[in-house]
Amino acid sequence: MISTLLSQLNGPDGDSTPRLAYGADYNPEQWPREVWEEDVRLMREAGVNLVSVGIFSWARIQPAQDEWDFGWLDEVMDLLHAGGIGVDLATATASPPPWLTTAHPEILPVTASGETVWPGARQHWRPTSPVFRTHALRLVRTMAERYADHPALVAWHVSNELGCHNIYDFSDDAARAFRDWLRDRYTTLDALNHAWGTAFWSQRYSDWEQILPPRLTASHPNPTQQLDFKRFSSDALKEYLRAERDVLREVTPDVPVTTNFMVMGGTKGMNYPDWAGEIDFVSNDHYVHPGPQDRDELSFSANLTSGIADGRPWFLMEHSTSAVNWQPVNVAKRPGDLARDSLLHVAHGADAVCFFQWRQSAAGAEKYHSAMVPHAGADSEVFRAVAGLGRSLQALAPVAGSEREPARVGIVYDWESWWASEQDSHPTALLDYRQEALDWYSALLSLGVRADVVTTTADLDRYDVLIAPVLHVIPAPLAKELTRYVESGGHLVTTYFSGVVDENDHVWLGGHPGALRDLLGIRIEEFGPLLDGDSVDLDGGGTGTLWTDRITVTDPTVEVLAGYRTGAYAGLPAVTRRAVGGGSAAYVSTRLGADGLAGLLPRLLGPAGVHSELPDGARGSVEQTVRRGPGGRFLFLVNRTDETVPLTGLAGEVLLGTADAEGGLVLGPRDVAVLRQPAT
Amino acid sequence: MISTLLSQLNGPDGDSTPRLAYGADYNPEQWPREVWEEDVRLMREAGVNLVSVGIFSWARIQPAQDEWDFGWLDEVMDLLHAGGIGVDLATATASPPPWLTTAHPEILPVTASGETVWPGARQHWRPTSPVFRTHALRLVRTMAERYADHPALVAWHVSNELGCHNIYDFSDDAARAFRDWLRDRYTTLDALNHAWGTAFWSQRYSDWEQILPPRLTASHPNPTQQLDFKRFSSDALKEYLRAERDVLREVTPDVPVTTNFMVMGGTKGMNYPDWAGEIDFVSNDHYVHPGPQDRDELSFSANLTSGIADGRPWFLMEHSTSAVNWQPVNVAKRPGDLARDSLLHVAHGADAVCFFQWRQSAAGAEKYHSAMVPHAGADSEVFRAVAGLGRSLQALAPVAGSEREPARVGIVYDWESWWASEQDSHPTALLDYRQEALDWYSALLSLGVRADVVTTTADLDRYDVLIAPVLHVIPAPLAKELTRYVESGGHLVTTYFSGVVDENDHVWLGGHPGALRDLLGIRIEEFGPLLDGDSVDLDGGGTGTLWTDRITVTDPTVEVLAGYRTGAYAGLPAVTRRAVGGGSAAYVSTRLGADGLAGLLPRLLGPAGVHSELPDGARGSVEQTVRRGPGGRFLFLVNRTDETVPLTGLAGEVLLGTADAEGGLVLGPRDVAVLRQPAT
Amino acid sequence: MISTLLSQLNGPDGDSTPRLAYGADYNPEQWPREVWEEDVRLMREAGVNLVSVGIFSWARIQPAQDEWDFGWLDEVMDLLHAGGIGVDLATATASPPPWLTTAHPEILPVTASGETVWPGARQHWRPTSPVFRTHALRLVRTMAERYADHPALVAWHVSNELGCHNIYDFSDDAARAFRDWLRDRYTTLDALNHAWGTAFWSQRYSDWEQILPPRLTASHPNPTQQLDFKRFSSDALKEYLRAERDVLREVTPDVPVTTNFMVMGGTKGMNYPDWAGEIDFVSNDHYVHPGPQDRDELSFSANLTSGIADGRPWFLMEHSTSAVNWQPVNVAKRPGDLARDSLLHVAHGADAVCFFQWRQSAAGAEKYHSAMVPHAGADSEVFRAVAGLGRSLQALAPVAGSEREPARVGIVYDWESWWASEQDSHPTALLDYRQEALDWYSALLSLGVRADVVTTTADLDRYDVLIAPVLHVIPAPLAKELTRYVESGGHLVTTYFSGVVDENDHVWLGGHPGALRDLLGIRIEEFGPLLDGDSVDLDGGGTGTLWTDRITVTDPTVEVLAGYRTGAYAGLPAVTRRAVGGGSAAYVSTRLGADGLAGLLPRLLGPAGVHSELPDGARGSVEQTVRRGPGGRFLFLVNRTDETVPLTGLAGEVLLGTADAEGGLVLGPRDVAVLRQPAT
Repeated sequence: MISTLLSQLNGPDGDSTPRLAYGADYNPEQWPREVWEEDVRLMREAGVNLVSVGIFSWARIQPAQDEWDFGWLDEVMDLLHAGGIGVDLATATASPPPWLTTAHPEILPVTASGETVWPGARQHWRPTSPVFRTHALRLVRTMAERYADHPALVAWHVSNELGCHNIYDFSDDAARAFRDWLRDRYTTLDALNHAWGTAFWSQRYSDWEQILPPRLTASHPNPTQQLDFKRFSSDALKEYLRAERDVLREVTPDVPVTTNFMVMGGTKGMNYPDWAGEIDFVSNDHYVHPGPQDRDELSFSANLTSGIADGRPWFLMEHSTSAVNWQPVNVAKRPGDLARDSLLHVAHGADAVCFFQWRQSAAGAEKYHSAMVPHAGADSEVFRAVAGLGRSLQALAPVAGSEREPARVGIVYDWESWWASEQDSHPTALLDYRQEALDWYSALLSLGVRADVVTTTADLDRYDVLIAPVLHVIPAPLAKELTRYVESGGHLVTTYFSGVVDENDHVWLGGHPGALRDLLGIRIEEFGPLLDGDSVDLDGGGTGTLWTDRITVTDPTVEVLAGYRTGAYAGLPAVTRRAVGGGSAAYVSTRLGADGLAGLLPRLLGPAGVHSELPDGARGSVEQTVRRGPGGRFLFLVNRTDETVPLTGLAGEVLLGTADAEGGLVLGPRDVAVLRQPAT
Repeated sequence: MISTLLSQLNGPDGDSTPRLAYGADYNPEQWPREVWEEDVRLMREAGVNLVSVGIFSWARIQPAQDEWDFGWLDEVMDLLHAGGIGVDLATATASPPPWLTTAHPEILPVTASGETVWPGARQHWRPTSPVFRTHALRLVRTMAERYADHPALVAWHVSNELGCHNIYDFSDDAARAFRDWLRDRYTTLDALNHAWGTAFWSQRYSDWEQILPPRLTASHPNPTQQLDFKRFSSDALKEYLRAERDVLREVTPDVPVTTNFMVMGGTKGMNYPDWAGEIDFVSNDHYVHPGPQDRDELSFSANLTSGIADGRPWFLMEHSTSAVNWQPVNVAKRPGDLARDSLLHVAHGADAVCFFQWRQSAAGAEKYHSAMVPHAGADSEVFRAVAGLGRSLQALAPVAGSEREPARVGIVYDWESWWASEQDSHPTALLDYRQEALDWYSALLSLGVRADVVTTTADLDRYDVLIAPVLHVIPAPLAKELTRYVESGGHLVTTYFSGVVDENDHVWLGGHPGALRDLLGIRIEEFGPLLDGDSVDLDGGGTGTLWTDRITVTDPTVEVLAGYRTGAYAGLPAVTRRAVGGGSAAYVSTRLGADGLAGLLPRLLGPAGVHSELPDGARGSVEQTVRRGPGGRFLFLVNRTDETVPLTGLAGEVLLGTADAEGGLVLGPRDVAVLRQPAT
Repeated sequence: MISTLLSQLNGPDGDSTPRLAYGADYNPEQWPREVWEEDVRLMREAGVNLVSVGIFSWARIQPAQDEWDFGWLDEVMDLLHAGGIGVDLATATASPPPWLTTAHPEILPVTASGETVWPGARQHWRPTSPVFRTHALRLVRTMAERYADHPALVAWHVSNELGCHNIYDFSDDAARAFRDWLRDRYTTLDALNHAWGTAFWSQRYSDWEQILPPRLTASHPNPTQQLDFKRFSSDALKEYLRAERDVLREVTPDVPVTTNFMVMGGTKGMNYPDWAGEIDFVSNDHYVHPGPQDRDELSFSANLTSGIADGRPWFLMEHSTSAVNWQPVNVAKRPGDLARDSLLHVAHGADAVCFFQWRQSAAGAEKYHSAMVPHAGADSEVFRAVAGLGRSLQALAPVAGSEREPARVGIVYDWESWWASEQDSHPTALLDYRQEALDWYSALLSLGVRADVVTTTADLDRYDVLIAPVLHVIPAPLAKELTRYVESGGHLVTTYFSGVVDENDHVWLGGHPGALRDLLGIRIEEFGPLLDGDSVDLDGGGTGTLWTDRITVTDPTVEVLAGYRTGAYAGLPAVTRRAVGGGSAAYVSTRLGADGLAGLLPRLLGPAGVHSELPDGARGSVEQTVRRGPGGRFLFLVNRTDETVPLTGLAGEVLLGTADAEGGLVLGPRDVAVLRQPAT
């Protein structure tokens, strides 16, 4: 459906070739009518061809339970259509209006310690509230029926950032829905009592009605209850997403439906790989959080979004032209950041580059969030950069609809392990699941080795090397699948705290990592987490923090790649590899950080024959991605540095970028170049 | 009225010349009857002539709803009067008694997250509770009627530190009162919806009853709702103050009414400039918070209190002889601090020096708070210093009733900007409004330049130079007034994040600072807040932190006083000045700190011809203030250092201080000298 | 009763000589039936002779209000008995089952800010709930009656870690019980009003029903209310303990009753010295918290437990074989730690060494808490160390039943002072009562001087030197007793903030420390707490932090042992001693830390003639304790270091340890040796 959508987006000259979407959230209700014409004029000037409308319009559209006001929105839709701009129309359910919460305070979420979450911001609704759902779906149906045949409508935008603030609700509605979900999962109380280990601390349930969400407790709440509540909470919002989608599909079966995910930073409440199947195409919001790995994180998130979309194109539904407003300090982007950040998403499969928002608000909670048209107006560096990016995206129209060409290395990213590994009552509270994965990713980038971030449901056989950092939760079938992968010649690399528990968060007994012990040929009797600030040296170089393991090698074919030189386990193995036929299974027992992993990786990639695809001088400086489609094979080359990088020896038509005198490419600081090669 | 009051205070010899008031909160109900006579004897020994009585006596005076016990208080009043000590009689409403909160728990405040604030400390009442008001005003009337004609009564002390703990209440009473306040302010819901920008995040109200205080929300609450709730909360307590005052004025029209403000540190909930008009004279409580700028802060607070009192004399109603009890570590004052701290307040217009409290408690929450008579008793260094200060204040009797002589430099301190500039969702959460103002003040002190801290309602034309740090909120009339000031020859200096929003917290569009853009001749497209720990160098010396701006000079007459040498905006202007006729408008775009500002100030003060009034050797070491009245012009000279400072070339009669052999003055460490010159 | 118990524990060969108990919490309900036989087999292999059963079994034993399931427990008891293993049977009341809290949510505790503490962890019950008590005591009676005559039963284990999470409950049940407790304590409201100092802040109560627990308040809650609430809360749980015990004594008068205390770290809610009299023998749980003084803390806690048991043997009911699960980072123990930690408890009087738990859980909140049988199984270093310790404990059987031989130095540890000295509104919030006591203890260890940690109710005359750090609360009788002690020739050493208040937290007036002023011959007018990071030097060496005092010597016989060299009180006394006949009273006015105290101690111990009992080379490296009983005098020698320490010149039979070639002992790193000398 995405290609149909892309074909509907008119270019500046009005043709109907598929092209990349470019635009923003557009909130005209914040502005007087006279601004709207200027908006459309500036959108055309900037190359905008898609806007999301109505995201926070519920209170405007429906000012009271039985009062509707669509006139202004009709006019906006008409104006946009007249301007050749497609509309990704929101269902407008993101933020319930004051009349609804006043009439029905029972839709307001409740925190773990029993506090009501009041209106005054946004997303103050319980995902499981039947009252909220009734009102919300009535709005969705009304919207869908009114605009079903409007020519500007190209896609539906379900709610907004589902779960951003309300993923965890501990209300009585949540308790009821949690019980229903548990009944579905376990069928019998005996099964639940076993799974939750309720023999401990006298928690055995004798009736479903006794079960509660993990509200404030005197000590550590039951870990499987916690994990199931995370699963349930993700499922409850997914179910809500399905409910909106079902209405939309019924009324407008041909209009694709999406919702904007938040694959970025620490946002972990929603199991997006599990949600992706519910929508017609994946959309994502991404914001940079300043720090030493900030652009690696952007690349990682875009890559993971691509993995969630199973390699198919997706939409960057929100990011920022410059500063945001919700961080402690909201730094402005430097010149070039706007385009580089945007194109890096395209490099990883984004077929749309959209911002929050079109025109910077003069009032309200996000008035200091940058936009395409800043407070300073169109006569500004930001708007000029916006228009420049519009031209670049037009040049990249051939890319539209192409998919990602799998890399040889895959990094496994698993929501269940993310949730479970960071729970309380663990060997260490300092473990950061996403940081460990990001460090492996940064290390690969620094070597110039292309890698895909994938989920456990991906086709693992696509990859010669599979890196599974902190793959904590390994149910029996996954253990079997990983074993099969290695036995079939795959090279598996995993780390500390992987394979320790099953799907119920029960420890695999007999020595860690229980689920992979035989495959790895090692046995760990005891974990050796390190105090904050402590570190150990490895004999091959590199410094470990956070974690160590007391490893016993149990299989004679295991090779010790590195040992501990200092610390409690000095002299014992730190990194091991067991060769299994043509494949292998390696284990890294400590946190080495991006630099340490970059030193280790060549020995882990070597057996698989994986090397950088980049010319010598560009490795580490340049990130390369590949998309391919009917129109060709597209090489994206992104300068990771603030220096100029010359690139030689790369064949192809230059869609974007500057050739040097000898016909090579020159990447200025933070520049992006795109080459088209013939489709193979 | 204050001069009448001062004339009622008998000196040790019983005459009725006006004199400075000296005393404390006096809480005899904490002590057995036999101590009271010793109290009065020691008060006379110390020169005490005024005490505040009854502040926390409600439960004692009215042990049950219809039971009154005034006998003990009658006796205390009589004893004090017999001892020649005037009484500033409290209305006793500060802390409701247990019987009242037990009968009416609905007067207890509620936090933003819905927690009840229980009795057990003090000030556990909702400012908007009609039930509390009924009971409190009944007490006020009973007190007033009983003591209307008591000869000891010289003033009324309304409640105590209004708003210290209960300024923000989120109860249903508060919600009701907030709605009434909003109806008054906006008249129509359309006006409110516009002011609050409710088009954002679907917050449009269709009925007044839908509006709530900014209780716990899922994300950032509406900023104008927050700002209005701050305004409302200050007004609600002001309204309560008026209610007590009205009863007092009705019963005792000739007795002046005051209430003790808390102009100090981070206490910002009460808009004191706005309250000052409601009382007959301003009183203030001030406590030192140890730190590198602690005495500059004392001076700043006293100066600001003087500004709030519009230069008229005011009362220092509470400070401490030594340590307090509510800081994390409560350090004792060094020898000399007691007198210096007290006299620095007098230097800034205090006509009373009072302490909390007369006799240090043996029990209760403040038993480790120092007092005039410490735990150790009268045979102690503290009491000897107290008596010494009493003698100094007697020597300064001629000062009583004199006003402040305006300085040539004014620092504008604005509650609305304080509230608004530190709200959430801003470019930086690290901005500290008061610290920026204090840094300018410290810089002026270090140059020996006298400055007045004033509010936006002061007569600005008194000042040749007006420094307005972070004057964030500039409504259109204020912008006009500042422009007029400059065009009339005034020299305006302002800083980063000034003039950015109007009274509704709406951004002035078209480039920052919208309200002052033309006056300053610059335009800022984007803010450049700095991460914590980051800094930039200026080409003229000085280091900026916290903030930078990307400045474009739009008026050819603008002079760049300093540029950025490093950072994202290297090469661009950092400090600018536009000459406008004889006046000028300057802009400082980063935080330079007190030292950096001291380096910059001479270039900002130069055009106005402002220099230090102090002799060369004393600049920076000595703070000078000037009071004047019918009795003369009084120069206060306060040693800011721990070294001895010789002072030459200052004419006048030495009211306080030590002359050296040559007839100059010698200021010992932390000493204060006072010279009387003839009134001009 | 403890010796009968110890005689019931069969050794591996089945004899009935008293022996040390060895075992763990045993939770067979977490495991399938087939594991139980292996459990008993491994227990015998490890030398286990005692297990605690049923601690968290309520929900299993009583799955519904009128449903009981004892079959599994009967079987476990039989199996254990058949294996020669005694059972310390829990009353199973520690964690109420879901059916109970669902039927009676009014048993759930409430926090100070009104939040309900929900089920999902453990100990979610109000100590004062009559409903909980009814159900719990019914269970206790049923358990007692069922197993009264079971041959495996050797002791009762009341509940578990009483007060670990629910010591402070602010519910309405708590309010009612608090009022009853206060009526008992004060009889009249006048007495309570006086004690609480309610004249301050208008808190005077006119009816008992007005009194509340110290719930969330606007400012500092009344300090005596806080202190009494701590006393009440400890008493309320003690009363609950008595209620269980009374049922047990009624049904099984011959079976000793205990409950596991938590004398360790910051656990201060339960006044254990006051509880100790309620049970037949003292038990304790102890967990190491990694840090520079971690094993000194272990020794201190064991020593204090011995003090609480008045020198009689006690049970170590829980500690860990290696890592725990509830610290931020849970480090594994090093080789040797398991045995050394265990034996250090035995050295201080433990006659039982028990762990939490026997078999490491595969599920639940504590699955990463180490156990005797780890996840890795019996083929593991942990289990081998467990078995090795079992053998050591068998070798130490002669020690069983012996008591501690008093040292010449006593350190006074006082719960009332602990509670009161760390309350809010004090001169400093940084004071750490336990740390100060621990520092004195570490200093004595570093000098090789043996000391007993005792409570104020101990027979003080046993000690030549009595160190009372921060003995903050000194009621008149205790002041008298300490004076008598000194006058009888005792040497008292006390510190800053001692003797400042009476039992009502009222300051002793006239100069600090009021209760000891005359005895010490000094007077302090004012405290001089130091800001965090500040320090002062003493002229005899040593550096003070946290606190200083402005001391005046009032008695000519006072000797100044050290003065302040720097700081506000430079030149004034820092450490003083007044000789009183053969005794003396010394005062240390600042925090010197363990090293500083080690430098000072020789001058404080000298007058009493106290020196180390250890050979020269071992002082500081070795900790020595002495137990004695009918079977001999037992010298425990514990290597405090990670180096080998030779020990010469110690006579006795080597029960544990390695003799070197010359017949001396050699203590390996962290080793423990035990010598038996003839009973005197």
